[in-house]
This record gives sequence, structure tokens and C-alpha cells, in this order.
Amino acid sequence: MLKFYYQKFSLYSRSVWIALLEKKLPFELIELALDGDQWQPEFLAINPFGRVPVLVDNNFSIFESSSILDYLELQYPTPCFLPKDIKTLTIVRMIKMLTLHELIPAMLTLIRVTNNKNAIEQANQQITAMLNFLETQLDDGLYIAGDQITLAEIVAGSVIIWLPDLNITLSNHPKVELWSNQLRQRPTWQETQPSPEIIQDWLKRIQKLPKIRARQWQQKPSI
Amino acid sequence: MLKFYYQKFSLYSRSVWIALLEKKLPFELIELALDGDQWQPEFLAINPFGRVPVLVDNNFSIFESSSILDYLELQYPTPCFLPKDIKTLTIVRMIKMLTLHELIPAMLTLIRVTNNKNAIEQANQQITAMLNFLETQLDDGLYIAGDQITLAEIVAGSVIIWLPDLNITLSNHPKVELWSNQLRQRPTWQETQPSPEIIQDWLKRIQKLPKIRARQWQQKPSI
Repeated sequence: MLKFYYQKFSLYSRSVWIALLEKKLPFELIELALDGDQWQPEFLAINPFGRVPVLVDNNFSIFESSSILDYLELQYPTPCFLPKDIKTLTIVRMIKMLTLHELIPAMLTLIRVTNNKNAIEQANQQITAMLNFLETQLDDGLYIAGDQITLAEIVAGSVIIWLPDLNITLSNHPKVELWSNQLRQRPTWQETQPSPEIIQDWLKRIQKLPKIRARQWQQKPSI
Repeated sequence: MLKFYYQKFSLYSRSVWIALLEKKLPFELIELALDGDQWQPEFLAINPFGRVPVLVDNNFSIFESSSILDYLELQYPTPCFLPKDIKTLTIVRMIKMLTLHELIPAMLTLIRVTNNKNAIEQANQQITAMLNFLETQLDDGLYIAGDQITLAEIVAGSVIIWLPDLNITLSNHPKVELWSNQLRQRPTWQETQPSPEIIQDWLKRIQKLPKIRARQWQQKPSI
């Protein structure tokens, strides 16, 4: 049976978890606390980088959420979450990567950096760029690629739902708002939704980290 | 003709550049300085996130290096840089993502954080984990997937070559060392190699950024 190592509030874990549930695959759910258990030799033998999510399939250990999602598409292609058309598929992949590299970092800034207007403004601009991009891509249907969910929904759609909790309204992006609300109601989103206690615990953990100096966020190294 | 927007020292740009050259595709090379030109309206119309690399193919604008590389595989599949076997393909994808999420951040730490032993030690551990992983995967051939380069070579292999410049020896990982040396000699690696002046300029730029506090690197938010 598939073994899925996750952490309760890990956004990266959640996208894989939703994909497993949407594909109705049987799997063993193994929770890590990430309080040091990720550095134990047993776990490092599974992922030498000490992170979740990890999927183990018949002794083959896959880490990095994006790689796990691509693996599931290849090995368990029904239902399929990647469209066939090259351009649409590329847009789905872009939304997946933009979620990891633009949306999530900007959201973390808003959670952690409270004392710097420029940093907050830049994060808001990144989030707006993401919402604008999604709004355009949702032009032709309820989902990014028509009438079925894709990895764009599974990755971006499991993160976007948190924006109202950061006091960012989706009402200026009505298609995204509808899309997000529809996704939030899916049984797989509901099943993987962390409880309020878990969210509070996670926020405390994130906010305890030292504040990041503002300029770092304005001048990301361009490599 | 394809239009490729890049910056001279951008590691992300370089992987796309190498892929374009290896595929012998004709393309227009458009350089950005990233000194503010990325925020001009003309460029934001191409990539609303203001980053390189960007590939524009017949008015279709693709950003995020990883998505561009996947697009090239679909649209211009000869030569092909993704193996057919699911497990090998997954390993190639993992190496690609681990380069972006483990190797490059650890290298930036070593360049920028000079005053904190723990942060430096953790970065070195991440790099060692990456080298160990690659060494294992190179067991059966010169390249990750046999006798032809893949996206693992193009992405990890255009970054690993800088480790000796950070005083990290590859000699404890002899297969990686041989692999890296072979890649470095390919015409496409040579053609995209930045000059010493460009490297110095980039290092100055990176080091001018404010130092990151140490604990940030020890306790990455686990989302």
C-alpha cells in the first residue's frame, strides 16, 4: 500500500493528500509533527532532506510535492489531473509553480512581516498578480482546463482558500472567488481541512520565527 | 521565432538557455539587467511577476523555468530530455525540484551568511544530501538516465558546477565529479558560462543584500 508522510498544516502535504483522495487510492497516512521527528534516522532514510510530504510506493520513495503529484499522474492516471493540450497543460504547470514560488512566499510575508510597508505592499502585489492570472485563465469554464479539476486546482486551489483569512478579499476576482468556493466544498478539501486548533498552533509556530528584514523581500536575488 | 528573456547570471535562465541550445532551436536572446527593467510595463505584459526566464512562443508567454523546460519537452521533443520509464522520469523530476528548493537556497546561504556556524552547517548538510542523492542515482551510467542528458543534467548540472567556487569539493562524490566535469565541457555549458566579470558583479549584488538572520535558515516554516 502507498505510504503518505505528511504534516497537518503543511500546504505542500495537503495538495498531495487531496490528489490521493481524488484518485481514490488506498494509502496509509503517517503524520509527522516536524518538531524534530523529521531528523530521525528512520525518516531521513526515506527522505534525506527531512521534509514532508513523502510518498513511498513499493519501496520507491518520492519527495518534493510537485514531483509526487507528477508521479501520481503517471502511475495512477485515473482520474487524470493534467490536460492533454500542450498550451493548457503548460498553464496548469505554471499555476502549480507560481503557487509554490510566488503565492505561498507572499502569504508567508503577510503572516510574518508586520512592520514594513514596502514588504507588505510587494507581497500584496504578488498575490494580486496571481489572482489576475487565475482570473484570466478561468475565462472559459469553471475550472482552469474546462469541466474537470487539474493539478492547478489541487495546488493553487488548496492555497487560495486561505486568502480571506489573511484579510484578502477575492471579490475583485469573481471567477476566482467562485472557483475557490466550489473547491472548498469538495469532500477532499473538507477532509483535509485542518481544525481551528491546528491553524492556531501553526500560526504561533510561524510567527515565533524571527522577523525577516524588509529589504530581503524587495530585492530577491535574481538567480 | 522563439523569444527568450534572460539575465546573464540567472541560474534559472541558464537551464532554459542550455535546453534551447541542446535542442538546436532558433531563438532570439533578449537580455534583462534586472535593475528595474523587469518592472517596466512592456515586460510585465510578458510576465506579470517581473522575473526571468521567460519564453515567448508565438505570443504564448511561459514563465517559471521549470514550466518552460516542461513546455519545451512537449512542443519540441527532439532531442528528448525526459526518460520514458516512470521511476527514472520521477527521479529526474525530483532532481530538478531539489535543485530549486534545496541546492540553490543552500548555496545562497553559503554566499550570504558568513557569521553563523549553524546556518552554514545546515547549508552544507543540504548540499551533502544533494550530492549523496546524485551519487546514488549515477550508479548505472554517466548520466542520470543512461547515455543521454535529461532535465536532471540541465538543471542540477548547471548549478553543481559552481560548488568548487564555494570551496565545496566534489572529490568525495567521484561519480558526481566526473558527471559535472563532463557537463562543464559541453559546448552548451561553455556557451552559457558567464564571464568572470559578470560573476564578480553578481556576487557583489548578492552580498549587498542584507544578511539573513541565522534562525530563519534553521527553522524553515513547514508549510
